[in-house]
Amino acid sequence: MSGTNSVSRSACNSKCSMIVVSNRLPFILRRNEKTGELERKASAGGLVTAVAPVVIRGNGIWVGWPGIHLDDPNEKIPESDPNDKAPTAGLLSKKIVPIHAEPKLFDSYYNGCCNGTFWPLFHSMPDRATFIADHWKAYIKINQEFAEKTVHALHLLKESNEKNGSPPIVWVHDYHLMLAANWIRQRAEEDDINCKLAFFLHIPFPPWDIFRLFPWSDEILQGILGCDMVGFHITDYCLNFIDCCQRNLGCRVDRKNLLVELGGRTICVRPLPIGVPYDRFVQLAQNAKPVLSTSQKVILGVDRLDYTKGLVHRLKAFERLLQKYPEHIEKVVLLQISVPSRTDVKEYQDLKEEMDQLVGRINGRFTTPNWSPIRYIYGCIGQDELAAFYRDAAVALVTPLRDGMNLVAKEFVACQINNPPGVLIVSPFAGAGEMMHEALICNPYELDDAAEVIHRALIMPEDERTVRMNHLRRREQLNDVDSWMKSFLKAMDSLEDEADDIGATSMQPVTIDDFDEYLSKYIGYTQKLALLLDYDGTLAPIAPHPDLATLPLETKHTLQRLSNMSDVYIAIVSGRNVENVKNMVGIEGITYAGNHGLEILHPDGSKFVHPMPTAMQGKVCKDGAWVENKGALLTFHFRETPLPKRAALADKARELIAAAGFTPAAAHCAIEAKPPVQWNKGRASIYILRTAFGLDWSERIRIIYAGDDNTDEDAMLALKGMAATFRIASSHITKTSAERRLSSTDSVLAMLKWVERHFSRRKPRANSLTYKNARKAKDSFHMHMTYQIPPKTSPRNTPPQSPDKNSSGSESS
Amino acid sequence: MSGTNSVSRSACNSKCSMIVVSNRLPFILRRNEKTGELERKASAGGLVTAVAPVVIRGNGIWVGWPGIHLDDPNEKIPESDPNDKAPTAGLLSKKIVPIHAEPKLFDSYYNGCCNGTFWPLFHSMPDRATFIADHWKAYIKINQEFAEKTVHALHLLKESNEKNGSPPIVWVHDYHLMLAANWIRQRAEEDDINCKLAFFLHIPFPPWDIFRLFPWSDEILQGILGCDMVGFHITDYCLNFIDCCQRNLGCRVDRKNLLVELGGRTICVRPLPIGVPYDRFVQLAQNAKPVLSTSQKVILGVDRLDYTKGLVHRLKAFERLLQKYPEHIEKVVLLQISVPSRTDVKEYQDLKEEMDQLVGRINGRFTTPNWSPIRYIYGCIGQDELAAFYRDAAVALVTPLRDGMNLVAKEFVACQINNPPGVLIVSPFAGAGEMMHEALICNPYELDDAAEVIHRALIMPEDERTVRMNHLRRREQLNDVDSWMKSFLKAMDSLEDEADDIGATSMQPVTIDDFDEYLSKYIGYTQKLALLLDYDGTLAPIAPHPDLATLPLETKHTLQRLSNMSDVYIAIVSGRNVENVKNMVGIEGITYAGNHGLEILHPDGSKFVHPMPTAMQGKVCKDGAWVENKGALLTFHFRETPLPKRAALADKARELIAAAGFTPAAAHCAIEAKPPVQWNKGRASIYILRTAFGLDWSERIRIIYAGDDNTDEDAMLALKGMAATFRIASSHITKTSAERRLSSTDSVLAMLKWVERHFSRRKPRANSLTYKNARKAKDSFHMHMTYQIPPKTSPRNTPPQSPDKNSSGSESS
Repeated sequence: MSGTNSVSRSACNSKCSMIVVSNRLPFILRRNEKTGELERKASAGGLVTAVAPVVIRGNGIWVGWPGIHLDDPNEKIPESDPNDKAPTAGLLSKKIVPIHAEPKLFDSYYNGCCNGTFWPLFHSMPDRATFIADHWKAYIKINQEFAEKTVHALHLLKESNEKNGSPPIVWVHDYHLMLAANWIRQRAEEDDINCKLAFFLHIPFPPWDIFRLFPWSDEILQGILGCDMVGFHITDYCLNFIDCCQRNLGCRVDRKNLLVELGGRTICVRPLPIGVPYDRFVQLAQNAKPVLSTSQKVILGVDRLDYTKGLVHRLKAFERLLQKYPEHIEKVVLLQISVPSRTDVKEYQDLKEEMDQLVGRINGRFTTPNWSPIRYIYGCIGQDELAAFYRDAAVALVTPLRDGMNLVAKEFVACQINNPPGVLIVSPFAGAGEMMHEALICNPYELDDAAEVIHRALIMPEDERTVRMNHLRRREQLNDVDSWMKSFLKAMDSLEDEADDIGATSMQPVTIDDFDEYLSKYIGYTQKLALLLDYDGTLAPIAPHPDLATLPLETKHTLQRLSNMSDVYIAIVSGRNVENVKNMVGIEGITYAGNHGLEILHPDGSKFVHPMPTAMQGKVCKDGAWVENKGALLTFHFRETPLPKRAALADKARELIAAAGFTPAAAHCAIEAKPPVQWNKGRASIYILRTAFGLDWSERIRIIYAGDDNTDEDAMLALKGMAATFRIASSHITKTSAERRLSSTDSVLAMLKWVERHFSRRKPRANSLTYKNARKAKDSFHMHMTYQIPPKTSPRNTPPQSPDKNSSGSESS
Repeated sequence: MSGTNSVSRSACNSKCSMIVVSNRLPFILRRNEKTGELERKASAGGLVTAVAPVVIRGNGIWVGWPGIHLDDPNEKIPESDPNDKAPTAGLLSKKIVPIHAEPKLFDSYYNGCCNGTFWPLFHSMPDRATFIADHWKAYIKINQEFAEKTVHALHLLKESNEKNGSPPIVWVHDYHLMLAANWIRQRAEEDDINCKLAFFLHIPFPPWDIFRLFPWSDEILQGILGCDMVGFHITDYCLNFIDCCQRNLGCRVDRKNLLVELGGRTICVRPLPIGVPYDRFVQLAQNAKPVLSTSQKVILGVDRLDYTKGLVHRLKAFERLLQKYPEHIEKVVLLQISVPSRTDVKEYQDLKEEMDQLVGRINGRFTTPNWSPIRYIYGCIGQDELAAFYRDAAVALVTPLRDGMNLVAKEFVACQINNPPGVLIVSPFAGAGEMMHEALICNPYELDDAAEVIHRALIMPEDERTVRMNHLRRREQLNDVDSWMKSFLKAMDSLEDEADDIGATSMQPVTIDDFDEYLSKYIGYTQKLALLLDYDGTLAPIAPHPDLATLPLETKHTLQRLSNMSDVYIAIVSGRNVENVKNMVGIEGITYAGNHGLEILHPDGSKFVHPMPTAMQGKVCKDGAWVENKGALLTFHFRETPLPKRAALADKARELIAAAGFTPAAAHCAIEAKPPVQWNKGRASIYILRTAFGLDWSERIRIIYAGDDNTDEDAMLALKGMAATFRIASSHITKTSAERRLSSTDSVLAMLKWVERHFSRRKPRANSLTYKNARKAKDSFHMHMTYQIPPKTSPRNTPPQSPDKNSSGSESS
């Protein structure tokens, strides 16, 4: 039946090259104590089973840490043992790119940031999370190392796969590597290597209210958004992620089609619920010898010993069961297998102690001469034994407090080949709880109810058990781990298509209407508007020389029309000198600020020049390329200098600038010499607004600021909370104080057109609203309140955005 | 200026009677040690300042705990001292309804449930929350006590205010009293007292992913939804609450107008950001003598000593500041005032110890002979001194880890009357951070950034400080606590209107389209549908006698047409006997299940009767009212028995039924005698589906189950995850296993019409999709995936709900 699931289109992908990037390699290395040689020890996980064959078939590469710190990072990775039957056996050593890291740094990354911060935070347990800058720095470094090794792998692949047409897939895994993708993309672009990047998160993605606690949450999102496709287990996590991208980064998003836009690219977000190697577990169950020789019903728990797994709650629920329903005494036994995990961390040691004590106490309370209620195994068990447990248990308790998916639930149903079958109990806080509908659902925190659910499972009639288990098994068989792998490949394949199973795969271009939700509530129907706009890269596309960066005609005409509107005030705030920027724009009656605001030319012709320390004047350095004298500052351009010579030239310029008492600052292929004055676009913007509108400007006007440059960030920061701010960014940038991002000058034009439409439409209403309402409209803006006062006579639920559509003559209301 | 804010309409409300219900009375009682008499001690909070005058003016009542456990609960509350100038002075003792509770129970309610569970959970710190059934039971009991006393107060009010026309407002406050409203509503309805109920939460309302951890979260929501209006500080909390109502309770909601529907009522959810008594603080600041005699800049922190306040992080950030910017050494001082709180709780004792140690360590590190960096006051300070601190501080640090609003931020700006003013720093995790845009925003977890922000505040130029503080002050002046009170009264006033400032105040009636989102994704375009429907209260409105409960004609015709559709299968599942229900419905060719499924009549005329223990047959008890013999069970009706006689009659019937070996079960004005057989509507439903569609029914059909009775819950539970389920409930009910709620038989008719429309529309596509897609559609249903595969030729982003609107002829794609 699973044959019907394989899709013809994904066949073309079965031989695509894939680079898998994961914290661990699909095997670990250890040193043979006798020979001193390195040996591989295979991992048994379902993920490896599914992914390794695809990597091998496509001649791909695996990048990861080998599980051992080697003194000599060049020591050769051994080939696999000839008798090795693991799916990774065919993975040749030349197809392995191991990560080496200084042990202390690695510890800070792995135990500090990954398991001390992200593990609890992403499981919505923020109190357990630590936020330590050094751990975060280690995380950055190790992610950079992974990125570098992955780029190396891309080069290896390019060399060996010259003939292969389709670009390789780079698949980055899990919360350990949330920053790597972005760097891989940048380096690959620089090295002119074509590839498709994907990320999959194996744990939950928390809601915005939790995620935003992480101080560097923006960087995490941008790191992940380096990919073309981002996968999570369930749709809830996808929506959490999209929500964070919108609220933290100001990205345009599409919740319906699960898309995020950043730097002009569309990132597809997809639910890809992972499965288990179903057939392998069926086989194991068919072949495993019975292990349990008891006539009692076995309630089974299998977990890593982790605080997310709800083990303490589980034992207490079982205790409650025996107390409330003593008929189960001597009739059932709880078999709890706890696999040791992170045993060097105090939190985990404490948990182990608590468990030991609890098992002792409950057994002490209920044990009879021939029966103990809990059998507690602290250790690892083999696959065969596990399959026998799964097969012969009457009830499986999968009750984590939070879990990305939980594969125990799936392995259990795969092994339930007996007739009549047992019952699965699963927590609503596990991804599996969202999918395995026929399981009994149990909130692990509610001990009484948990006891009731276990009781219900124990007495459930055969026919109900059968129908539930049949459905559960059927779903897992169809959606096994191979099917997950195929879904992933299909999703990657369809990135170029117009739409995949979920919906469209690229964002619609920005339209005027896109600004409605954000801007119309802020600006409202009574306020004047001040438009503060950067020039280069915001109004005019960047050009090889400043003289060539001309204003597109449509933008010019739109600005011209806006400048004639009585309620719209325009100021161009540029790094150019003020005469120059006025020339480039060529519109009369608006304000121009040059040299990042050090010179301001008002519409009435009056000019403000920021006072300069006279000692600085005239000190102008020249050395190669060209120097632009902007009056109060100067810019050293090396845009046309050949690439190899730039660094040395720039260093020299910096030196000269600093020696002259100016502050050198990096700009686009240029270095700016700023005079030692506390003045920037932010101060200048506030000066402009105060001059034009008086001291209480922010009560009477609304402000839009748009800019593409780092110098614009000063203005965005200064106006934070007092303006709608747009950062124009055609590629990734690390951080912005702007509330929204736009990907091009075209989007800015669309925004200007929105302003034009808004102000021509609203005219008829302008006088019909009071000051009070306008104030409310302002407050509501930052509260994300999406409501306007509808006119009393209008029909209910009229969208507030279009109160004027049929306004002609209706004003009398 | 604040005059313009008072609304003429709310004037009519200024004399309305109000009952305030809060955990604490607006003063506390204490016993005079000399005289042994009780005395009032006034509270100084801004809330009391604003609310008490309204209560007094309207001749209202305050219900709350007096802060002392009295041996004699009837001991008289003293009148206020004649010299008392507090706003509560005019609150006469007869207008006080004190709560008395057994101290241990009260402790379990207050320290256990309120502060041990809800406080950390609602502040999104789930790890700190305990979930203990006994605490929850205490919470229920105390809330019942509050409800009872409030109903008593309503009676008092009715007696004294006979002439007053407008119904009184009952205003329940905060997380201590989330259950009371529902009981107040029920009791008031029973006692025929008209009132309007409101709730306001003073702490955050967490996102669904956190809230749902609470095992009894449904009860909380339903308790709050007993009100007509529910207020939170900010829109984010409103949306979290609405989200929970939809996802936990299956309520219809309206996110745009902030409405929730439950039991046929509309509940308005409103953001009501609280303010401070602005003018009072200005006055205090104007009059307060200078306290700080230092030339150093003062950074001020004022907080209850609580783990939500981020005090440890704040001290560390200050340490980081001194380390990174040593220029501030001997130039600034951090004045931290920590007000003792919950000092008998271990967690709070631990926090105090940590603070003491940290202050010592940091002071030890940086202190110079004439300067210590931190002045740490652990204790309470007076209003005058506080105002002086607020006025003279250069920077206020309001950096909680989570805070509903935070009034310190607002009090600070009110007192900032100096020129030039200081700078406010506020955490984005406080409600105040959402509103006070011109403050500097600082994530308290990020120590480095926090240090940067403090540094920025310390060096901020005067003009920027001035413009920011002016805006902050202006907003708080306009939105002071009196304005909050007015907003509340206005919101209550407009409940009867069509719309208020936010939008509509009542839900639109259910329409066919309302079912689109939920059902079309589940049913898809290929599946057959089984409709399992209860009769009484679901298809036919409840009537005084079963014979009168006839099927409305429109419903009958719709069912008739549905029964003729090849893809729709219908079964009526009723508690009536099978012949009777068939007669009432009167449609041929469908399945009828009677006696809760013990008898099933198939369309082909064949009949299933559940086997009965023969000993039980014929045992029929009769005693008054009438007994309906339903074949395999019988029902004892006392619907027409006079009210006072019912209880005794019912008890007798129960006794007789039990004696006969049957199980008595409560039904609507009736007692059913169930034979001792494990059979119910759930088992019957699965039997019906299996018989009609074979063992693998759930793979080939979709199921809708609708019912209004407790016996229907068996079916909803059994079909959980395998069906779309609706519970019809015209009033509040505590719990349902159904996924959605409907308020009337009319809504069921709308649902049936949706089915009809869906199945007549989809016909042209029926064969064009594969099995696989159908399976996906099913899986996606419970994953809340809202996506269908659009036909490849259709334009992008076509809503999946209407692929057939223009389908004629387009099938060739």
